[in-house]
Amino acid sequence: MNGAQALLRTLVDGGVDVCFANPGTSEMHFVAALDAVPEMRAVLSLFEGVVTGAADGYGRMADRPAATLLHLGPGMANGLANLHNARRAHTPIVNVIGDHARYHKGFDAPLESDIDALTGWLAGWSRTAKAVDEVGADTAAAIAAALTAPGRCANLVLPADVSWAEGGQAAGVVAPPPPAPVDDDRIAEIARIVRGDEPVVLLLGHGTTREAGLVAASRIATATGVKLFAETFPARIERGAGLPNVERLGYLAEQVQWQLTDVKHLVLVGAKAPVSFFAYPDKASELVPDGCQVHVLSVLGEDGVGALEHLADEVAPGASAVRQAPSRPALPTGPLTPQNWTEVVGALLPEGAIVSDEANTSGLMIPMTTAGAPRHDVLTLTGGAIGQGLPVAVGASVAAPDRPVVCLQADGSAMYTVSALWTMAREGLDVTTIVLNNRAYAILRMELSRVGAEATGPRAGQLLDLSGPDLDFVSLAQGMGVPASRATTAEELAEQFAKALAEPGPHLIEAMVPSLL
Amino acid sequence: MNGAQALLRTLVDGGVDVCFANPGTSEMHFVAALDAVPEMRAVLSLFEGVVTGAADGYGRMADRPAATLLHLGPGMANGLANLHNARRAHTPIVNVIGDHARYHKGFDAPLESDIDALTGWLAGWSRTAKAVDEVGADTAAAIAAALTAPGRCANLVLPADVSWAEGGQAAGVVAPPPPAPVDDDRIAEIARIVRGDEPVVLLLGHGTTREAGLVAASRIATATGVKLFAETFPARIERGAGLPNVERLGYLAEQVQWQLTDVKHLVLVGAKAPVSFFAYPDKASELVPDGCQVHVLSVLGEDGVGALEHLADEVAPGASAVRQAPSRPALPTGPLTPQNWTEVVGALLPEGAIVSDEANTSGLMIPMTTAGAPRHDVLTLTGGAIGQGLPVAVGASVAAPDRPVVCLQADGSAMYTVSALWTMAREGLDVTTIVLNNRAYAILRMELSRVGAEATGPRAGQLLDLSGPDLDFVSLAQGMGVPASRATTAEELAEQFAKALAEPGPHLIEAMVPSLL
Repeated sequence: MNGAQALLRTLVDGGVDVCFANPGTSEMHFVAALDAVPEMRAVLSLFEGVVTGAADGYGRMADRPAATLLHLGPGMANGLANLHNARRAHTPIVNVIGDHARYHKGFDAPLESDIDALTGWLAGWSRTAKAVDEVGADTAAAIAAALTAPGRCANLVLPADVSWAEGGQAAGVVAPPPPAPVDDDRIAEIARIVRGDEPVVLLLGHGTTREAGLVAASRIATATGVKLFAETFPARIERGAGLPNVERLGYLAEQVQWQLTDVKHLVLVGAKAPVSFFAYPDKASELVPDGCQVHVLSVLGEDGVGALEHLADEVAPGASAVRQAPSRPALPTGPLTPQNWTEVVGALLPEGAIVSDEANTSGLMIPMTTAGAPRHDVLTLTGGAIGQGLPVAVGASVAAPDRPVVCLQADGSAMYTVSALWTMAREGLDVTTIVLNNRAYAILRMELSRVGAEATGPRAGQLLDLSGPDLDFVSLAQGMGVPASRATTAEELAEQFAKALAEPGPHLIEAMVPSLL
Repeated sequence: MNGAQALLRTLVDGGVDVCFANPGTSEMHFVAALDAVPEMRAVLSLFEGVVTGAADGYGRMADRPAATLLHLGPGMANGLANLHNARRAHTPIVNVIGDHARYHKGFDAPLESDIDALTGWLAGWSRTAKAVDEVGADTAAAIAAALTAPGRCANLVLPADVSWAEGGQAAGVVAPPPPAPVDDDRIAEIARIVRGDEPVVLLLGHGTTREAGLVAASRIATATGVKLFAETFPARIERGAGLPNVERLGYLAEQVQWQLTDVKHLVLVGAKAPVSFFAYPDKASELVPDGCQVHVLSVLGEDGVGALEHLADEVAPGASAVRQAPSRPALPTGPLTPQNWTEVVGALLPEGAIVSDEANTSGLMIPMTTAGAPRHDVLTLTGGAIGQGLPVAVGASVAAPDRPVVCLQADGSAMYTVSALWTMAREGLDVTTIVLNNRAYAILRMELSRVGAEATGPRAGQLLDLSGPDLDFVSLAQGMGVPASRATTAEELAEQFAKALAEPGPHLIEAMVPSLL
């Protein structure tokens, strides 16, 4: 077998059987090898930002990596922003970056560039396949690296001549090391703190915002009175009826300061101490209140869920978790507002939904109005690089084809990676996208005043305005083969959302929601 | 004035009065400063790949830089692919990359990343503004660096706290050094070669494919019989009736080898010796024929046009350039073919047009069918990173608002940066886009066989196929406010193209051209 076949065979044997791809000439042997390794499902996207965002969504839901196939440095560059989000989400991904044949690189052909600079920017694990008889082993190492807790991008650069050479051999699975357990002394120290008289917050980070972690944390809270928060932008949080309902820290510094008022001990569980998303003149970057001590139950890469369970057994042996009761908002009526569209979602969200949430300012009320909806997962914008929502929905649906995916997508961000809609149509993915069209970069209107920029004029305002021409997402979606409709009232949104959920395949609803700001 | 105002004032004073922008929170003071420096025209795009591609098109036509405004590392990452093309085109651009406040960077906020790694990948000139009282001088230095021959990206990282601090001062213009003249000895040596008996080719590269360089080269050819070629992908080539018609080297290695058959001396004028775009098994990467000596008249950064004129005065004192006679193909009839659509363009291309050419395989005949059309400029895909055509058309039109811009755009590549259409509509740009919709990555079908991949199966073929669902570019364009129509016959294309050219503002025509392959 050639190098590409050895790579694909090793991926499949290692449990990586989906590849999101946008290939070029240097990847043609990889493409040709797809027929030799039919267990690999290749999903074509029309832009690498969709490829990488889809791999992120897939990894968050599947707990194992998808592969990506990227064309040289510029192809990887196009995918970097969503890989940045994946890095923040600690999503396991195996990026296969095709490169020129090694003997060709010195000629500085037009597409030549320094791929190592890009993989360096992304961090994670990186290796260049240098010999055809080692590409299988390189691939197995990449899978293991991607899966090593807490999860990361593994970047495997594949020169074309390694890909096409004969003499490849598939490599066996390399098991990633298990996450490190948290030692008893640390558990005991945190137990002492949560049992104390002073106000304590447990901040739940990576890996602990799913059922097992939430239940253990809720038991601790029940027994000791500590408060629970989830990090602001979890990679994946399980919630809804039957699960403990843990509020997330706010996006705005003011919200976090309010949430942490009077807290004396902040215990981090796979989370970082909260910092402001951006700097603002004369405002603090660190959001831990004065007089609050920061403690660490677990760091990234450690077994945070195990630590929470151990701690719960220590401090809350008889306590039960508090689970959210079923509760839905009534279906609202009247013209759409920033609030009532979220009530429609809360009223109709189906059991087992996966919510890809890039609603930004339009989605401020979503956590409240969906808290008692049937159990669902929410995937959030972990790294702040917009254009994640639609691609993550693609990947989540590929990972969980039997679950309905709901993508809540702000208009400005949607345009970064809008061709994800085409992949949804091509693959027949059961994704219902609601685009919140407020015809503005509304979040920047808020930020313009928050950064203390002087009273602004029309020329500044124009850069935050998405009208003139108005984007027509119905037309855009139809142009990519996705059935679409427009809602201007809550009744229309409810009717269209229910209909979309009832039908298989992708749908898009353009919800004309006025800007909050 | 604050740092942002000092930066903008220095840009405008230095002749940089257009900024293609996609801002975020860390750039809000720059945005606010637009009302204080109204000479700066800010052009909003919905994705950074459009921002940077537009700056490339602008610089190629204006011969001076536009600024870009990019949001932190991920924003720059999204713009990198088209900056790669700009780097290959040696286009002057001043990239302003907003960054977190310096004191905020250590907190590893979600959007934090290593911007230096990205500017390093791009190469060019880079600096981080470190003090508000120096940001004006930093900006002046960036402009000078961008304009230093042969032209480059100058990357100025602007921390938010430098942007918002008071105490900025605009800096005066820093003149870039003139391009180095080519010394007499080298001219004399090349004169000896072109006067010799052996076959000589002059390969015209950067800066020499415009009228002055073409005329001097044509005089040399007339007097000495040397053959002329332009590099494969010139940043800008002037051509059409009244100008010397210089054929470009081909994209395929086989074409180049045929073009250079029996050549004994290849003289480079601001060009590189030809290499294959990609490596192929058992094919050479270097395309200089055996037995052909390579000589250098001028390297990048030297005054190639001056050298050609000097050489012409030496070897062709009385010779005139051969100028292309006016000649247009007849308007064809019948269903669209890969050939006849180019005849429609040749028959109707208006005087003074700027052609942004990313037609890829569909455009193979364009150089022939437009050779005798009225004088026009062609901007080509210099770096191979697809998704350039539409953004470059945006920038070219902003730079030359009185000239008609014609964008010849392949379907697959169009989807990379399709939101450029929205900016065309917003700015009312006189751009007529013809999307060649062959429902395939046709170039990859060709490459799949050329790389010697084994007989491929349906799974490989599916990754090169853009049908299912079919992209509807009429619907996409209308969704972004651009009037659009579809042509399936040559008559329809001619009628729609003529109508679009006669009306101001942007238009899109989806030409249903079957794939060559």
